[in-house]
Amino acid sequence: MNDTMVLTESAQDLLFREARTANTFTDEPVGDDIVNAIYELVKWAPTSYNQQPLRVVLVRSPEARARLVHEMIDGNKQKTTAAPLTAILAADNDFHRNIPTQFPVFPNAKDILFGDPDRREIEASLNATLQVAYFILGIRAAGLAAGPMSGFDADAVAKEFFPDGRHRALVVINIGRPGPQAWYPRLPRLDYDQVFSTV
Amino acid sequence: MNDTMVLTESAQDLLFREARTANTFTDEPVGDDIVNAIYELVKWAPTSYNQQPLRVVLVRSPEARARLVHEMIDGNKQKTTAAPLTAILAADNDFHRNIPTQFPVFPNAKDILFGDPDRREIEASLNATLQVAYFILGIRAAGLAAGPMSGFDADAVAKEFFPDGRHRALVVINIGRPGPQAWYPRLPRLDYDQVFSTV
Repeated sequence: MNDTMVLTESAQDLLFREARTANTFTDEPVGDDIVNAIYELVKWAPTSYNQQPLRVVLVRSPEARARLVHEMIDGNKQKTTAAPLTAILAADNDFHRNIPTQFPVFPNAKDILFGDPDRREIEASLNATLQVAYFILGIRAAGLAAGPMSGFDADAVAKEFFPDGRHRALVVINIGRPGPQAWYPRLPRLDYDQVFSTV
Repeated sequence: MNDTMVLTESAQDLLFREARTANTFTDEPVGDDIVNAIYELVKWAPTSYNQQPLRVVLVRSPEARARLVHEMIDGNKQKTTAAPLTAILAADNDFHRNIPTQFPVFPNAKDILFGDPDRREIEASLNATLQVAYFILGIRAAGLAAGPMSGFDADAVAKEFFPDGRHRALVVINIGRPGPQAWYPRLPRLDYDQVFSTV
């Protein structure tokens, strides 16, 4: 099977097969230099019209972390308290402001395609979520473990951390080196035939 | 910068830096074996509660391709007609039916967490979109080029290809080996400071 893949076995393991969602972390800090290196890699992955709506808040102060933990569901509170770094990933619903510089081949797309706020929200969530996935794999590419979570009050998190009212909080990710008993047992995946059909 | 990354430079290039969205393709076919190998790799990437809502229709018959092309915006028609393989990626809003087997540690999550159709749709779109991104990188991991597109009538595509009414069409992806003049010039990405902030 793997003869068809060009990516090396060890890279496949690092990003997909051996990487696991971490639920505990060591105390080793995750500096801005690492986050920057991850972004400088994953920023190249594609979005529609190069719109790049992802916005990230790195939660570093104890005060901000307490505010975030307050909005997490119970099962996510302890690990979000303990992780060396926690990031809030959100969609900027006004990403279109950047279209003239990011999509200079059609600068008027800003208004022509993205003038309607409802359409813009759909585009922002879709594309920022693609970028969340790229970022998760980028964390793994840096040799770190990611603990992505959707179990939190998204409206409350948006209100706390994006008070301008134009962002949607998508995913919160704990980032660090895995600690003791970091993984749950691997859960099953759907079979190919449950996911794919041909017409 | 790259000293902080564990993923090799060549893997970084393959997946992110040199990979590009393809707009033309050669005639070389993309068989089910390749799609299967891609899925067997990317299926391991994480989703919330292991829910795996992604569903994929591989468009292979000329009749089905014509129906799809009809729903694409003008700028996407020609390349979708010419690509060796086109895949429609959608979210299954009734993914919760699989929770008892896929998340056996909490089988009642099916009804307790995902009984509400509105919440389920949000979860389905979020997690299927993460899986779309994993799939795009999986195509690149197989040494192929992806041409992901959001420019199509999503409601019409859902109606045509998921007539049960419980799917949302997210992204259509052309897949193959890049043909002549496959790329547009690389577009700029946002700076780190435009995306990241710290609290």
